[in-house]
Amino acid sequence: MQPQGYGQPSPNHLDSTFAALADPTRRAILARLASGEASVTELAEPFAMSQPAISKHLKVLERAGLISRGRDAQRRPRRLEARPLAEANEWLEGYRQFWEGQFQRLDALLNEMKTGTVKMGEMNMRQKKRRQAKRQKGRRGSY
Amino acid sequence: MQPQGYGQPSPNHLDSTFAALADPTRRAILARLASGEASVTELAEPFAMSQPAISKHLKVLERAGLISRGRDAQRRPRRLEARPLAEANEWLEGYRQFWEGQFQRLDALLNEMKTGTVKMGEMNMRQKKRRQAKRQKGRRGSY
Repeated sequence: MQPQGYGQPSPNHLDSTFAALADPTRRAILARLASGEASVTELAEPFAMSQPAISKHLKVLERAGLISRGRDAQRRPRRLEARPLAEANEWLEGYRQFWEGQFQRLDALLNEMKTGTVKMGEMNMRQKKRRQAKRQKGRRGSY
Repeated sequence: MQPQGYGQPSPNHLDSTFAALADPTRRAILARLASGEASVTELAEPFAMSQPAISKHLKVLERAGLISRGRDAQRRPRRLEARPLAEANEWLEGYRQFWEGQFQRLDALLNEMKTGTVKMGEMNMRQKKRRQAKRQKGRRGSY
């Protein structure tokens, strides 16, 4: 994986995308829009929230490019825009190898514990060795 | 895709994960830690930032569970924790079908324009029809 942001600035739109996604109401609005366009009134319905409060959330989503407005002058329906979601996903995908490796090591260790091939003392020694190896790798790592 | 958050509350840890990811310095720190553990001094090196400023970012990442502290009492190395990244990725994956569909429709339209099988006027009509169909689907959609 290529480290991003060391030396080269990370794209700013990821800032606004992730910030917009950091709220349960906004994520729920996106989930609703994934099944089709909806007006502000329709979007506000399932929430115990005023329309101005919903409008505030919609503005955050709109600024992040996650939603846009349809052309119907009366309803001004909002629709989901796919690109920022795909870009956020792409950034996270860069770490897939890392988390799959971490989960695999944990699975292997749990299996060894189940079959009794490793005792607690040994496990601690292994963890210690792994950490030392990682640390040395980290020191060698270039930015 | 299952809409999340309409009726059932969306998990809170996604809030702190996405909020932590909404900053280029914090994303760069994670990218650095993906290649191995590092102390605060090592993490601060490539940034034109004071150690207290970096420590503030590390606290946000730690609270979100994205990093943890190693046992070396002197270096207190930070290491990347995979789980929150995998969970954020899982949430976004729920929209894959949506963005792939949106990109495919765009590709198809651009191809038609290239081969001259569709003219601008027709394209607008198609978009209008698609929006109407979507709107009706949205109205029918259950929460």
